[in-house]
Amino acid sequence: MELLDALKWRYATKKYDPSKKVDQELIDKILEATRLAPTSSGLQPFEVFVITNQQLKDKIAASSFGQDIVADCSHLLVFAAWDNYTAERIDQIYALTTTGRDQPADRYQAYTDRLKSMYLNRPAEENFAHTARQAYIAFAFAMAEAASLKVDSTPMEGFISDEVDELLHLKEKGLRSVTLLPIGYRDEANDWLVNLKKVRNPKAKFVTEIA
Amino acid sequence: MELLDALKWRYATKKYDPSKKVDQELIDKILEATRLAPTSSGLQPFEVFVITNQQLKDKIAASSFGQDIVADCSHLLVFAAWDNYTAERIDQIYALTTTGRDQPADRYQAYTDRLKSMYLNRPAEENFAHTARQAYIAFAFAMAEAASLKVDSTPMEGFISDEVDELLHLKEKGLRSVTLLPIGYRDEANDWLVNLKKVRNPKAKFVTEIA
Repeated sequence: MELLDALKWRYATKKYDPSKKVDQELIDKILEATRLAPTSSGLQPFEVFVITNQQLKDKIAASSFGQDIVADCSHLLVFAAWDNYTAERIDQIYALTTTGRDQPADRYQAYTDRLKSMYLNRPAEENFAHTARQAYIAFAFAMAEAASLKVDSTPMEGFISDEVDELLHLKEKGLRSVTLLPIGYRDEANDWLVNLKKVRNPKAKFVTEIA
Repeated sequence: MELLDALKWRYATKKYDPSKKVDQELIDKILEATRLAPTSSGLQPFEVFVITNQQLKDKIAASSFGQDIVADCSHLLVFAAWDNYTAERIDQIYALTTTGRDQPADRYQAYTDRLKSMYLNRPAEENFAHTARQAYIAFAFAMAEAASLKVDSTPMEGFISDEVDELLHLKEKGLRSVTLLPIGYRDEANDWLVNLKKVRNPKAKFVTEIA
């Protein structure tokens, strides 16, 4: 399926069939799409939690205003961004980069020094605003890849992040939950949105071309 | 090409061949991907500017620390998010939704009232942080669609947004530039990044499965 067709096909699923599980092979492809997402300076400042444990899904559903999509989905993805940039985190990624590219360890030293002088002197909240945006790129890639595999998903911001952080012990890991992405297969008969038209601003209202 | 293969193929192009232009048909597909991007409550709180005017590209390049990718690309996309939520903006989208779905005009009244009570009582800066995140979903879809069409692109945050806002008269439109996406075809012989390995955290470092 062409990606555009997949993006037309997808919608924010409002009811999952809890008896239908997504194959691990497909989950792995969705996760690989998130892993491949580009991020600012390549820092990949987020992690993904994949939850199939029913008790934990139920608890997160309770922290999501009781939305059953969280409890009923096959796999729940939680995107959690770094709570701050640190020298260690920046160095770790660039050590991986120089090793992976067979380059001298100090190949990007001047660059990482610039990153550190910029990020380590800003409030954590400002850095988190930046890491969260990067997580959204991966979040979007996950939705696109899921749709291209005809797997349903539901982008979600409506949850109490402090509670989810506590359930997943994110604070101790220097992470904060940003978005949820339930994944699974729609329960078409009980989904109020599935047959409603996808509405978007027309191109004329949305795009300005300057030639 | 499968989406995952496209995501492996893509990289942040560092040198464009200015003689190679992207066909309008492909640009339209990339824009359609951005238009289809899901957003919080379906508000689509951003617009996309597509710039082929060379003088304007040159000026934006000057506001991007002189990066030639901005001047040399075929099309420059600018993602600009709403500077704030307003009742009019929320009503406009939901009027489109009810018309598009042939529903009564007040079908989503209780819902939009809730949105207004939440958004219209927050500082503009907090709302902009939210609209900007939505723009990142579309930004990511644009990169994914471009890659699936074998069109190169470069995600960019490195520019002086106030200057770009002024060049595009965004303030008057209640918009603020968030990201740039030069699009075009690589100049392989002069791109330092093209042959370097794509490095990402391994899955084990990046994904936690809780079964």
